[in-house]
Amino acid sequence: MLLMLYLIAITAEAMTGALSAGRRGMDWFGVVLIACVTALGGGSVRDVLLGHYPLTWVKHPEYLVLTSVAALVTIFIAPLMRHLRSFFLVLDALGLVAFTLIGCMTALELGHSMLVASISGVITGVFGGILRDIFCNDIPLVFRRELYASVSFVAAWFYLGCVHFNVPGEQAILLTLFGGLLLRLLAIRFHWEMPKFQYNDEH
Amino acid sequence: MLLMLYLIAITAEAMTGALSAGRRGMDWFGVVLIACVTALGGGSVRDVLLGHYPLTWVKHPEYLVLTSVAALVTIFIAPLMRHLRSFFLVLDALGLVAFTLIGCMTALELGHSMLVASISGVITGVFGGILRDIFCNDIPLVFRRELYASVSFVAAWFYLGCVHFNVPGEQAILLTLFGGLLLRLLAIRFHWEMPKFQYNDEH
Amino acid sequence: MLLMLYLIAITAEAMTGALSAGRRGMDWFGVVLIACVTALGGGSVRDVLLGHYPLTWVKHPEYLVLTSVAALVTIFIAPLMRHLRSFFLVLDALGLVAFTLIGCMTALELGHSMLVASISGVITGVFGGILRDIFCNDIPLVFRRELYASVSFVAAWFYLGCVHFNVPGEQAILLTLFGGLLLRLLAIRFHWEMPKFQYNDEH
Repeated sequence: MLLMLYLIAITAEAMTGALSAGRRGMDWFGVVLIACVTALGGGSVRDVLLGHYPLTWVKHPEYLVLTSVAALVTIFIAPLMRHLRSFFLVLDALGLVAFTLIGCMTALELGHSMLVASISGVITGVFGGILRDIFCNDIPLVFRRELYASVSFVAAWFYLGCVHFNVPGEQAILLTLFGGLLLRLLAIRFHWEMPKFQYNDEH
Repeated sequence: MLLMLYLIAITAEAMTGALSAGRRGMDWFGVVLIACVTALGGGSVRDVLLGHYPLTWVKHPEYLVLTSVAALVTIFIAPLMRHLRSFFLVLDALGLVAFTLIGCMTALELGHSMLVASISGVITGVFGGILRDIFCNDIPLVFRRELYASVSFVAAWFYLGCVHFNVPGEQAILLTLFGGLLLRLLAIRFHWEMPKFQYNDEH
Repeated sequence: MLLMLYLIAITAEAMTGALSAGRRGMDWFGVVLIACVTALGGGSVRDVLLGHYPLTWVKHPEYLVLTSVAALVTIFIAPLMRHLRSFFLVLDALGLVAFTLIGCMTALELGHSMLVASISGVITGVFGGILRDIFCNDIPLVFRRELYASVSFVAAWFYLGCVHFNVPGEQAILLTLFGGLLLRLLAIRFHWEMPKFQYNDEH
């Protein structure tokens, strides 16, 4: 089930990456590259930082094909995307939580502590989007949108709490998925935001 | 021969990096760093992603000296560079194809599949330029110029095709070099471009 | 003593990172992430490039807690920061030299050459700040400020010179710290700058 979710998540993330590239008027090659970076970048950063080789897409290059196809399809159905926005927000939220879960599990399997596992989860969840925004020369959105990175953080610790209290694996995953999804959707609906820090100096 | 080409390529890429840094008015240290990142960044990203240690410049730190010297020389001969533009476009095209070839070969030697080898080639070919543009706070040019990343992609698959059909190593390299160089120069001459994807929404 | 210095350095760097994030109006989560990247990013880039696992913060996740707390404290004491600017410049200079020293030592312990050790020192010293500026979508400051990266470079070679001439370890560290700190503070006081390279073309 987690694999299914993962495939849905990378497809959805690839499509959001492709749209970002389209906003910058990139060529098709750029669209495909940004899509792959958005979908697979979070996991790659995690694996490089943890020294966990081979990376997912090196082991399963078919995932690169999937994200590339998703990017090319996006180019053709872009005019429809406007009407599917709510649908995509849900997929994107699902992807965020699924990525976070996978990041936590990967670190735990490698024998890391809970603290490192939670960081691994957040990195997997949000770094794809951060890299997308750096490549497109934007200030990363994840720090400015309604509870995006925070949902990843809360979901990571919720899952790690379940693991700590010996909740059976499948139930822990399902609970985290539903809880995280709910939190993200409520945040979007009611425009919940983290407090912002504004600092000005003479610079 | 490939080593010769590699040295020419990193020198040429270092000089394009130095010019980019000069456009942003960086100090000499920044010029040298951007030059090194442009020349050696593609290979470094590839090696980090594939877990292929030690990196080229750690094994051969003399390459860092070469690119640093090339950057400093560029500062002094910059007024001449305007007149050498066509010459540099050829060197840059040669470098792109040489980097791509080396990236493919490295991945094949590590026992990776053709698909991963082609990605490795493209990463080696274009990531130096992407990092240069990210460090200089530009939108990466490689996604907007005439068939740049695409030449790398086509060259990678052409070479992998040669390998698949057992074309002898040296011939495969030469054919790919000439083919890739020709394709890139024709693209520049006739302004061939990949179709662009333009997407606007209410954002 | 070097550990003490390291802890002071990452705290100071975390606070400069938090202020940068505040200038961009990021939310608290972004502030914490930018602080961690600024404080621990240089060492992480070094370790990834040298294949030196596990990374510092994976081995000592308590450093992440320290930098996160420093970031949150910064949010609350930000109005005071204006008056502490000189104090921070000293801490930041100390951090720069301490990071550089640690980078050199790490590479030497891994058996690398002096040239690679000097690069390792500079990367550890300046990459935290470079990543901070890339994440905040700025042109990296380190290439434009008074002798910042250059102080790191000079300190690295000064220390390596001490090692080469068998100066006892502790004395080499102290000499480098005082020399580097002095050089940086003089550079700030008298606005010493590296020459800039300005290049314009028809682009």
